[in-house]
Amino acid sequence: MTTTRSPLTTDLLRALRPHQVLTHLSERLSYRYDAIQFGVTPLAVVLPETTADVVAAVRAAKAAGIPIIGRGAASGLSGGVTPLQESLVISFTRMTNLHIFPQRRGAVAQPGVVTLKVSEAAKPHGLMYPPDPASFRTSTIGGNLGENAGGPMCFKYGVTGDYVKAMEFVDVDGDVHRLTRDCYDLAGLLIGSEGTLGLITEATLRLIAPPKFSCTLMAHFAEVGQAAEAVSSAIAAGAVPSKLEFMDRACTNAVEDYMHLGLPREAEAVLLVDTDGNDSQVVDAELELVAQACGAAGGTVRRATTPAEADALWQARRSISPSLGRIRPQRMNEDIVVPRSSLPDVVREIRALGDASPFQLVQFGHIGDGNLHPNIMFDPRTESSEAVHELAREIALVAIRHGGVLSGEHGIGTMKKDFMRDAVDPVTLEVLRDVKRGLDAGNWLNPGKILPEAVSPSTLAGDS
Amino acid sequence: MTTTRSPLTTDLLRALRPHQVLTHLSERLSYRYDAIQFGVTPLAVVLPETTADVVAAVRAAKAAGIPIIGRGAASGLSGGVTPLQESLVISFTRMTNLHIFPQRRGAVAQPGVVTLKVSEAAKPHGLMYPPDPASFRTSTIGGNLGENAGGPMCFKYGVTGDYVKAMEFVDVDGDVHRLTRDCYDLAGLLIGSEGTLGLITEATLRLIAPPKFSCTLMAHFAEVGQAAEAVSSAIAAGAVPSKLEFMDRACTNAVEDYMHLGLPREAEAVLLVDTDGNDSQVVDAELELVAQACGAAGGTVRRATTPAEADALWQARRSISPSLGRIRPQRMNEDIVVPRSSLPDVVREIRALGDASPFQLVQFGHIGDGNLHPNIMFDPRTESSEAVHELAREIALVAIRHGGVLSGEHGIGTMKKDFMRDAVDPVTLEVLRDVKRGLDAGNWLNPGKILPEAVSPSTLAGDS
Repeated sequence: MTTTRSPLTTDLLRALRPHQVLTHLSERLSYRYDAIQFGVTPLAVVLPETTADVVAAVRAAKAAGIPIIGRGAASGLSGGVTPLQESLVISFTRMTNLHIFPQRRGAVAQPGVVTLKVSEAAKPHGLMYPPDPASFRTSTIGGNLGENAGGPMCFKYGVTGDYVKAMEFVDVDGDVHRLTRDCYDLAGLLIGSEGTLGLITEATLRLIAPPKFSCTLMAHFAEVGQAAEAVSSAIAAGAVPSKLEFMDRACTNAVEDYMHLGLPREAEAVLLVDTDGNDSQVVDAELELVAQACGAAGGTVRRATTPAEADALWQARRSISPSLGRIRPQRMNEDIVVPRSSLPDVVREIRALGDASPFQLVQFGHIGDGNLHPNIMFDPRTESSEAVHELAREIALVAIRHGGVLSGEHGIGTMKKDFMRDAVDPVTLEVLRDVKRGLDAGNWLNPGKILPEAVSPSTLAGDS
Repeated sequence: MTTTRSPLTTDLLRALRPHQVLTHLSERLSYRYDAIQFGVTPLAVVLPETTADVVAAVRAAKAAGIPIIGRGAASGLSGGVTPLQESLVISFTRMTNLHIFPQRRGAVAQPGVVTLKVSEAAKPHGLMYPPDPASFRTSTIGGNLGENAGGPMCFKYGVTGDYVKAMEFVDVDGDVHRLTRDCYDLAGLLIGSEGTLGLITEATLRLIAPPKFSCTLMAHFAEVGQAAEAVSSAIAAGAVPSKLEFMDRACTNAVEDYMHLGLPREAEAVLLVDTDGNDSQVVDAELELVAQACGAAGGTVRRATTPAEADALWQARRSISPSLGRIRPQRMNEDIVVPRSSLPDVVREIRALGDASPFQLVQFGHIGDGNLHPNIMFDPRTESSEAVHELAREIALVAIRHGGVLSGEHGIGTMKKDFMRDAVDPVTLEVLRDVKRGLDAGNWLNPGKILPEAVSPSTLAGDS
């Protein structure tokens, strides 16, 4: 039986056009995973073209008692869009209207617009859209809003939520709302909520004038603490790099094994730094501040002298994901954010955890704002997912011990949901549950994400 | 009887120290108003020094069944802190701890810290705190967070909420929560919620390096549309002024009557513009773009050649509030935000409403982001508050008709609460009520603010 003809699909086919509803198993199978995790195959998939289609789909699913999961390009790294039970997946990839308003320095985008397209459409008007998640060639605006995605440019320019001026969303009852960033900032609440509070069907985005100049350097260090020190003293000296990326030795070697770029294999830490602005002398002077700080901290600095050379240096950073994919078929990708001053200790403690485990572990991230991505490589066919999860939790606890948080840009999803109990006190967690109940009392929207299950009194009673 | 000895005050005096509890009528009277509106004299006032004091006060008030209103310097312009019934006011003016962390470019402030003090304390470290509400010499960080305050620098640098990295708050049950800007962004929800969802007891703020240079011009125009056109074309040409203020003819004349600064009394619109940055040539060039746009739109431009001259030009803007205070004892201060392209029409329509009314009306605001402050002058002893309210509503409707919103930086408070029904559709309003219920089901925290009362089915039934 490859096709479902449940009351849900009958309803959906009545409310929508046939090509908008996927019911064949072969089609539905492709909507059970994100970039990192498999879930349960959905009962049906809807491909809306308008907000009205979304309303129809939500009402049909709710009438049938089926949970609803909104989905962009599924390039997420936290399991945010993987169904945990039989669900309706609403895939926004056909809602791709995009309008640029140069005078207002704004864009109005449907959720299926690919992130990069916004900057491409803005470019002829001398404008850009800064948030740059690594997957921005495939990720969608809707997904970026759902996870409040960041990227290398976030240290200087801020994350997705900083560029959202207004939105339209469909609530769990199928009612349509238009929100600006007023009080209460309901729009801000939906950003990063992974489709658990409502489905965003349009976003009004803020655009900025791109900087006219940028320049690039790479520095490598014999010790991770030196790199962190260099970053802190460069920032204290007044540099605000537009990108500030870190790779540990395991990460550098993984990239070098794959790409043969001539990276320094012996270095414990590599930094990639861009400065940008509208005055080339100022941009150069700012990079010089960074170069001096790197040198003073014991690093070896290599400055790019041409755009091609800068691009070659950044190729190392862009190659991390494919390089890691060669090591093991699967990886658990963390997204912790720690105070920059704690970074040397945090990197060392996580390194020690990795070395003591049976898994290969690499670390890289946006060191400017302390956002670190420890990745655990594993093969789910031969290695224990529980052991991976336990190591991931140990890593999360290192971050929390150092005053850090679980997620800088990937979201909580299913991957870090259990760690929320370690990161958030029980009373605050209950307030977050109140917020969820306020907007989705029946738990129809992306159930099982972000919030760990409450330990209910009845469960406890059953134990006695 | 000037002192209340209710069960509440007995409880408060038991839980706190005597000097922290004000019970005398003469003391309590001072806590019934903000900068624009009178309310009901509170039953008692608490002056906490620690978060634990706030917890004790909240628990005592809730036990006694008394509503709770958090209050900063009460320099607000929307009635946000005026009690609407007999309440406990928690005045944060003694919670003034402030710590600067230069390496992290951050500050940790208790809510009673005066806004300006943050930048003053940050200055020796080469840092600043950008949000600059007009009242920043007296307003507090807690009040700024409560109203998500803005100021002239917001167009380039963003509002208060853009600078909040983390916070501590006390909920309606007296439980203490610490939040970062994670999902769900509960911190973002509290910002601008005017103390209706919780009481913020500490904020971690982001600091930035101040620009090294700034320059200033004033331009005046025979027609409001010319000023709006100049602003739009300057921005389209790539200028991002750090301040961009507008005054209409009535406003300019009110200031001139008071200050005799030599302002152009015949001009229908005056613009005050700053550009800033780290390279003086770029800053000059950016101001030149603005000057050219003003000239092309028909304006007369006057550039400040010295810091003293720049300060003299800005004195006009800073003198608006005292100048208006001379005209009538009270004013209704609106805070609409409209698309910049609609500004000429909006200013003209509001002007016409003012001219057709018995009231003097002036308009000024942050034209860069379309934030306009129409002010209605009146004397509550001789003029009808209802007529003022009706005119204010007509002005709000002009903004809404042009795709605008009610509040850019002052908050909703009581002043614009009734207009929320015009600005927000009923279903979304119900979601906002769900959020309020989620965090304060009993409506103990600053009741009657922001959200207009629901028309309950029972009330409707009673009518029949």
